[in-house]
Amino acid sequence: MGSAFETDTAVTPAGEGRYEATLSDRWSILGAPNGGYLMAIAARALLHASGRPDPTTLTTHFHRSPAPGMVTLTAQPLHTGRSTSSTLVRMRQGDAPVLTMMGLAGDTATGRGPSAQQAQAPELPPPEELEDPRSLGGGPPTPEFQQRLDLRCLPGEPGWAHGTPTGRLETVAWLRLLDGPEPDPLVVVLATDALPPTVFELSMFSWVPTLEMTVHIRARPAPGWLRVAHRTRFLIDGTLEEDAEVWDSAGALVGQSRQLARTRG
Amino acid sequence: MGSAFETDTAVTPAGEGRYEATLSDRWSILGAPNGGYLMAIAARALLHASGRPDPTTLTTHFHRSPAPGMVTLTAQPLHTGRSTSSTLVRMRQGDAPVLTMMGLAGDTATGRGPSAQQAQAPELPPPEELEDPRSLGGGPPTPEFQQRLDLRCLPGEPGWAHGTPTGRLETVAWLRLLDGPEPDPLVVVLATDALPPTVFELSMFSWVPTLEMTVHIRARPAPGWLRVAHRTRFLIDGTLEEDAEVWDSAGALVGQSRQLARTRG
Repeated sequence: MGSAFETDTAVTPAGEGRYEATLSDRWSILGAPNGGYLMAIAARALLHASGRPDPTTLTTHFHRSPAPGMVTLTAQPLHTGRSTSSTLVRMRQGDAPVLTMMGLAGDTATGRGPSAQQAQAPELPPPEELEDPRSLGGGPPTPEFQQRLDLRCLPGEPGWAHGTPTGRLETVAWLRLLDGPEPDPLVVVLATDALPPTVFELSMFSWVPTLEMTVHIRARPAPGWLRVAHRTRFLIDGTLEEDAEVWDSAGALVGQSRQLARTRG
Repeated sequence: MGSAFETDTAVTPAGEGRYEATLSDRWSILGAPNGGYLMAIAARALLHASGRPDPTTLTTHFHRSPAPGMVTLTAQPLHTGRSTSSTLVRMRQGDAPVLTMMGLAGDTATGRGPSAQQAQAPELPPPEELEDPRSLGGGPPTPEFQQRLDLRCLPGEPGWAHGTPTGRLETVAWLRLLDGPEPDPLVVVLATDALPPTVFELSMFSWVPTLEMTVHIRARPAPGWLRVAHRTRFLIDGTLEEDAEVWDSAGALVGQSRQLARTRG
């Protein structure tokens, strides 16, 4: 028996680059499956089709929000290099396109070369000492999705959940899956899209659909809690970027992401 | 007669989603056409095929460095929404794949919604008062590519070109095309990949091939000089991200990019 994440992101090969999967209702926000959850499913098809162990970079265009239930996926090889492969994955629900992912897969463990970091993991008190925002009464109703995650924020954060939006479009949090497993690159993908929209701190509580999201996997994570730093710098005419950095328990950067999203305010 | 940029990035429709283009040697670095130049060509095919005026987000996987000369492109529609279209463009030289681009096109002028900026354009003295690094003797030989651009840096920058690498993986510069035209979104795409690799400031002068690069176009630029801010925070086992922000002469953010690249040191 796998964890909820492993079970709910499983894909079944259906011949000739085709896959089937069932979207669970356990990863939804107001009835719509979370984008990071959908990306993890598409990434499983991409890894299976490429025969490579790790995602290196995954770019997803989100076309339409699906309902829980069956989806089909196709994987089309784009280019096979010495150590990486580019693949295109398309997810559909019935005839409706859900998303298209273009991704590069390789073997993260074979990376060789120099290292130089100009930034460190965010400093946070131990997760046991911090607040679980699900314990708060304020803000929008807690989505099913949040029931899968153990999330620990600094006292008073997020401000909007305490009834006092901060106006600062950045936050940091500890994150882990409630029933395991230990994090792997696909859990890192999930983590990059797991925090509430940054613009909630501007009291903009409308739906924030993602147009495009790119996730870089920089290393396989060590066991334990992940730290996520989430930030928006530019909301322009209703379009914003949301950047995420994901760090493992050993303080290593394991993932970076940027999404382009829309808000009506 | 168009500018060198317009002439050298032109694509010719060749029926059924096919295009031809000729890579000029005027945008090369040590014989290899610049990645931003190649993206601008692929983006022209993408815009033509989608029938939309502006790129919104362009993601490119670079497979192999081409030589100057003829390339063919194919454009495959992935999804057509109300106001945006996703398209896949593949560029080949003979039988060899050069790059694959997945992009979303729309109409930047129709963006509606709230704005909130948490950062401003970098403060720089007027370009006329700053150094053109091409006038310096140090560093690697000036590529053909740099002869197309007017680039103005702060005194002493880039450090490596003055023989004193700074160890700081960030820089800012003014940039414009030497023979025009005024900037448009495709010039912004070029600008995101126009500065020398950040890791030169670590005295790492080996080739820095791009695995994947995503450019967001946030607005159509005003006429005049562009400002580019370029930064790397994480070089891990030879893999790094390079982020760029491009601002127009009116101080508006017009583009954001992130690339995943490799260095041997």
